[in-house]
Amino acid sequence: MAMRIAIDAMGGDQAPEKIIQGAVESLELLDSEDELILVGREEVIQRHIGAVRQYRAKLRIENAKQVIGMDESPVEAVRHKRDSSIVRMVKLAADGSGDAIISAGNTGALVAAGVLLLKPLPGVDRPAIAVSVPTAGGMVLLCDAGANVQPKPAHLYQYAWLARIYAESMGHVKNPRVGLLNIGSETEKGTPLVKETRLLLEQDPSVNYIGYVEGRDFFRGVCDVAITDGFTGNMVLKVIEGLTESLLNVLGREIRAEKPEVPAEMDRVLARIQSSYDHEEYGGAVLLGFSGLFLKVHGSAGAKAIRNAVRRVKEANRLDISGRIAARLSGGVA
Amino acid sequence: MAMRIAIDAMGGDQAPEKIIQGAVESLELLDSEDELILVGREEVIQRHIGAVRQYRAKLRIENAKQVIGMDESPVEAVRHKRDSSIVRMVKLAADGSGDAIISAGNTGALVAAGVLLLKPLPGVDRPAIAVSVPTAGGMVLLCDAGANVQPKPAHLYQYAWLARIYAESMGHVKNPRVGLLNIGSETEKGTPLVKETRLLLEQDPSVNYIGYVEGRDFFRGVCDVAITDGFTGNMVLKVIEGLTESLLNVLGREIRAEKPEVPAEMDRVLARIQSSYDHEEYGGAVLLGFSGLFLKVHGSAGAKAIRNAVRRVKEANRLDISGRIAARLSGGVA
Repeated sequence: MAMRIAIDAMGGDQAPEKIIQGAVESLELLDSEDELILVGREEVIQRHIGAVRQYRAKLRIENAKQVIGMDESPVEAVRHKRDSSIVRMVKLAADGSGDAIISAGNTGALVAAGVLLLKPLPGVDRPAIAVSVPTAGGMVLLCDAGANVQPKPAHLYQYAWLARIYAESMGHVKNPRVGLLNIGSETEKGTPLVKETRLLLEQDPSVNYIGYVEGRDFFRGVCDVAITDGFTGNMVLKVIEGLTESLLNVLGREIRAEKPEVPAEMDRVLARIQSSYDHEEYGGAVLLGFSGLFLKVHGSAGAKAIRNAVRRVKEANRLDISGRIAARLSGGVA
Repeated sequence: MAMRIAIDAMGGDQAPEKIIQGAVESLELLDSEDELILVGREEVIQRHIGAVRQYRAKLRIENAKQVIGMDESPVEAVRHKRDSSIVRMVKLAADGSGDAIISAGNTGALVAAGVLLLKPLPGVDRPAIAVSVPTAGGMVLLCDAGANVQPKPAHLYQYAWLARIYAESMGHVKNPRVGLLNIGSETEKGTPLVKETRLLLEQDPSVNYIGYVEGRDFFRGVCDVAITDGFTGNMVLKVIEGLTESLLNVLGREIRAEKPEVPAEMDRVLARIQSSYDHEEYGGAVLLGFSGLFLKVHGSAGAKAIRNAVRRVKEANRLDISGRIAARLSGGVA
């Protein structure tokens, strides 16, 4: 299936240089019919890709004169900056001329543009962000990781559907075990949101719901998909990033204190762990709930993260993730 | 200052054996006028301390025939089990015959018993749980770590007061930097709860409020006190525990894969890190908002955790933490 991949040249801490570099580097990953659309200020993009001739046929620039900053209020920005790279990318998806979107920019704006300009899949009220998190017990898909900070129980229930179909379709797990993040395993623990969502999940025999999952169990491989609200999910994700960085720093310091020359094998071990917990390596987040692939890479994404994102949307396209989600959801959720 | 320390012999996964063992072992930490009160089923406690003669003068048993299980609904349990170890301990505090309480039992029940049977300090509506978390940037006091899963902005504001006075009084920091946990650093990010609490904190010049703190920054030492709701705080705490365990496991596995005989210096490094992130080592949580010291140790606490808890309440008593909090709060919060 040929695909057209739109990349936000202006979004993220390392835009435009590293994003454009990553886009150019990932041209070699495309099949012959594929097209890569760099969305942003044309003169800036032209300047950075000037030297690239051989792949020119696969590359197209979509001029968007405005940029939505990382700190801008999402809804306001999307309403007022109709010629921003994010809004233009989402419009490409809306009119059917883009199959996938990749952005390192303002997550809220990407979500808001989706909500304002696209129709969610039937049965879905609000999109959600899903992120694959590495744990000692395998990968866990965390959803929602920040799209919606105040969801209702019905939204969390829909997230469970979206995330499990995504996890299953990506080929990693059959009938994914779905857990609901909570601060205890007993039924009466937690907020009303959690308790009401539990009732919805328990009533649906088609969801392989395994119950509440605590922060500790999350890392022990008890579930394949962990559902939560966007505030908690985003907090958990950033705590994971911060603690991993902090622990590996402390570890390096302690090893050097014991032995000024760090043994080669320890260097290899640390590099391997660093990389498996590195968001540049494990890619990014996916925005679920729309037809089309929406990949939000980390705000600090560089060229490597963009390449990995292109690799992921190619793989998702090959597996027809969007088609599978739409087919399953048309069977009826909620 | 002589003190009477009540220990819940029946609470926690390792009760009663390890709790009683820890209590007996910590008798040597007491000063001559101090008294340790083991609260729980008299015959069970008698059986376990049978052999201890030399400290008998410092040890007293308070018979409580009922036990509140870890899974029981807190408010119901406290209402119906008036002769439980938790309720009896809180009553000792209420009638002035206990200066400190240590429990590894049902946290919710301890909080509920406090709320139902004790008057909070003037200016405090709801108590909060504060936990010291080790980070690469130093210790951070996380508050609330689970007392109240649905607080109002005014509660979070009071937590900031309680936690900063506690952090200051324990002698670790002057004018502690107070941060508010959020999923972004921009003012419009987050839930209404977070945004309204921000306004309250900004209006109070006596609080050294430094703004929103994200999960990543939490581990970089940007604040001394991190304020959040009990749901988020408890989730963060358990994610920290789970990820630390998970990372150290992966690390050990990877090192053995590189080198079947782990070098002695690596063993030392891993043990040191494990211990600095070990909740048995760094003690437990403190319930702030009442006169008197309420220490909630982890549900999995063993003898070592109980000893450390006794050491901490002795230290807090020496520093007159409760007196200092009461004196500062009587100046007026909110």
